[in-house]
Amino acid sequence: MRIAVDCMGGDHGPSVTLPACKAFLATHPQAELLLVGTAEALAPAVGWARCTQVTATEVVAMDDPVDVALRRKKDSSMRVAISQLKSADEQSPALADVCVSAGNTGALMALARYLLKTVDGIDRPAIASVLPNEHGGFTTMLDLGANVDCTPEHLLQFAVMGSALVAAVDGRPDPTVGLLNIGSEVIKGSDVIKRAGDLLRAAAAGGHLNYHGNVEGNDIFEGTTDVVVCDGFVGNVALKTTEGLAHALSQFIREEFTRNWWTKLAALVALPVLKRFRARVDPRGYNGAALLGLRGLVFKSHGGADAYAFERALVRAHDAARNRLLDQVRGRIVDTLQSMPIQPADEFVRPAA
Amino acid sequence: MRIAVDCMGGDHGPSVTLPACKAFLATHPQAELLLVGTAEALAPAVGWARCTQVTATEVVAMDDPVDVALRRKKDSSMRVAISQLKSADEQSPALADVCVSAGNTGALMALARYLLKTVDGIDRPAIASVLPNEHGGFTTMLDLGANVDCTPEHLLQFAVMGSALVAAVDGRPDPTVGLLNIGSEVIKGSDVIKRAGDLLRAAAAGGHLNYHGNVEGNDIFEGTTDVVVCDGFVGNVALKTTEGLAHALSQFIREEFTRNWWTKLAALVALPVLKRFRARVDPRGYNGAALLGLRGLVFKSHGGADAYAFERALVRAHDAARNRLLDQVRGRIVDTLQSMPIQPADEFVRPAA
Repeated sequence: MRIAVDCMGGDHGPSVTLPACKAFLATHPQAELLLVGTAEALAPAVGWARCTQVTATEVVAMDDPVDVALRRKKDSSMRVAISQLKSADEQSPALADVCVSAGNTGALMALARYLLKTVDGIDRPAIASVLPNEHGGFTTMLDLGANVDCTPEHLLQFAVMGSALVAAVDGRPDPTVGLLNIGSEVIKGSDVIKRAGDLLRAAAAGGHLNYHGNVEGNDIFEGTTDVVVCDGFVGNVALKTTEGLAHALSQFIREEFTRNWWTKLAALVALPVLKRFRARVDPRGYNGAALLGLRGLVFKSHGGADAYAFERALVRAHDAARNRLLDQVRGRIVDTLQSMPIQPADEFVRPAA
Repeated sequence: MRIAVDCMGGDHGPSVTLPACKAFLATHPQAELLLVGTAEALAPAVGWARCTQVTATEVVAMDDPVDVALRRKKDSSMRVAISQLKSADEQSPALADVCVSAGNTGALMALARYLLKTVDGIDRPAIASVLPNEHGGFTTMLDLGANVDCTPEHLLQFAVMGSALVAAVDGRPDPTVGLLNIGSEVIKGSDVIKRAGDLLRAAAAGGHLNYHGNVEGNDIFEGTTDVVVCDGFVGNVALKTTEGLAHALSQFIREEFTRNWWTKLAALVALPVLKRFRARVDPRGYNGAALLGLRGLVFKSHGGADAYAFERALVRAHDAARNRLLDQVRGRIVDTLQSMPIQPADEFVRPAA
C-alpha cells in the first residue's frame, strides 16, 4: 500500500503531517508513503525509510477559492498528491493507492473531481465520515457538504457508496442504510426524499442494498443503521450542529468543575473517568472523511487536525485502500444501477444530465 | 392572562398536565386556566381556584393522522382548547390569550392553522424553540418541522417572526438573526438560501431586521445570533441530531462512571457537579415551542414532557401572551413587508399563491 500525503495541507502543515507520517510508518511496516510538499518543508524527512519525497512548489491555502486551486496553482502539493493516483499510461499502475490531505475541502473536492473523474454511474462524488454511536460502534454519514442540492438518484448513489465504504473499512458485508428524514413514515419529507425512498426500496428489493427506511436525526447517534444518507446541506448542518453541541457541553462541564474549590476537588477525583469519556467522544479518533465516487481514493483530514488526528486519517485511508474500497464502490454501483426496475422508476434512475 | 390547556395531550395526559397546572397557578397568582379535557379526566381538578373546566368528549391520539384530527374528532380537547383563542363575535374578546398542548405536532399545527388562520403577510406558520448556548443564554431556532420545503420569502417571514418572539419573550428589542447555511460566505448554499440572504439583507437595510448573515450548525450553540432561521427539514434534523447526541453523551458519561467501584466512588464525589451540569442542559427547562404566524398564540409542549417540563411550557406561553407576542409579530411583519424594496427583489416579496 502506498499513500500520497499532501504534507502542506491543514492549519499546521508539515509540523503536524510529518510527525503523523512517522508515527503511522512505525505501526504499518508494510506501508509506503509519498510525501508531497515543498523541498524546504520536507527537509526534516530526508532519508526516512519507506518514504519518497515528491516536490511541489505551491501550496493551496485554507482560504483559497476553488478557482485558484484549479486554475492558478498548478504545482500545488494538493494537486501533485492527487495526481499520484493516476497512472502515466494504461499499462503502468498508479504511483499511489490512496491520497490524504488536510487542505481546504472545496479545493480538494474540485481538484480530485477534475483530475480523477467520477466512477461510471456516479454523477457526483460525496463526502462520507463516521460518528460514534451508542452501540459502541460508528455510523457512517454522507453527504457531508459536497452537494448542496441532490436528486433522488444522487441519494441512491450515496447509499450504494456508503454501503461499499462500510463493507470495505469496517468489514460489515451487508450494512444497513437509513434515509435521513423528519419522520419514520414513508409519506414524510420533501418530494426528493420521498422519491429517493422509492429508489432505495427498489434497490433493496433487487437485493443490492440493505435498506432500513427513514431515520431521524437522533438515529445517527443511536446507531439505528450503519449508513445514514442525506444531501450535503443537511449533512453539513447536522455535522456542524453536532460539533457545536459537543463543544458547548464540554465547556459546560469545564465550567461546572471549576466553579469553586469543592468542585475542583471533585474534578480531581473524577479526572480518570472524565478522561476516558473524553477519549471516547474525541473526534480526533475517527478523523478522515472519504471522498467517494471518484476513480481514485482520496481522504480528507480535518483542517485543524493535530498529529494524532492526522495519523488516524492515514490509518483510515490505508484500510480503505487495502480493502479495495474503489473496486467495491465500482462493483456495487454497476450492480445496483443495472438491476434497477425500468418501471415505474425509470425517470429516476436515468443519470442526471 | 388566561391560558387554555389541552389537558389530554402528550404521552401522559392529565397525570402530567394537571399537576403542572397546579404548580403553575401557585407561582402565577394573576393567571387563570381553562382546563380542557373529558369530564372524567378533569375530575381531580374540580373546584380548583382560578380554573374553569371546558369539557371535550374526544382526544387526538399521538399517532392520529392529521386528517382524523381535522375532520373526524370535531370535539377533541385539542380542537376545543385552540377554539378558546377565537372570539364568538367581533365585539367580544377571546376566552383565552394563549393555548398550550403536548399533543401530536402535525395535528396541532393543522388544527391551529384551520381554526385560527395565518396573520396577513405570513404564508406558513413555523415552529420555534430555544436551545441553550455557550453565552449562558438561549438561541431561538425556526422552523423546526412545520415546513419541509421553503421559499426565500418563507425564510424572511420566519426571521421576522423569530425576532418578534425573542423581543417579546426574552425582552431583547433588536435580536440578531442568522441564516443557517453551510458556510459563512454569501455565495454559499442552495439557490433558495442565497435568495433568502438577499431578502434578509434588504430587510436589514430597511432597518426592520438585525441581520447578521450566514451562520453554521455550530453557531446555534455558540450563540452567535439570537435567532437562527432555516427550513423545517433542516431544523428538524438539527434538533433531533442534537437530542440524539445529548442522549448518547449522557449514556457515555453514565457508562464511564459505573464501570467499577472506583469510578462509582468518583461519581459519588462528582454528583453535585454532575447534577448542576445536568440541570443546565436539561431540555425540560426550556420546553415549549411557539407556533408562530397564526392569529392566535399556540404553544407546543414536548409529547413526553413530565409535570416540570409541561409547567415550563405554561410559563413560556404565559410570558409570550403577557408580552403581546401576537401584536409584535403582526406589527413587525407589516412593517417589514411594506418596506421591502420593489426592485430588485419584487419577485421574492410577493406572497406565494
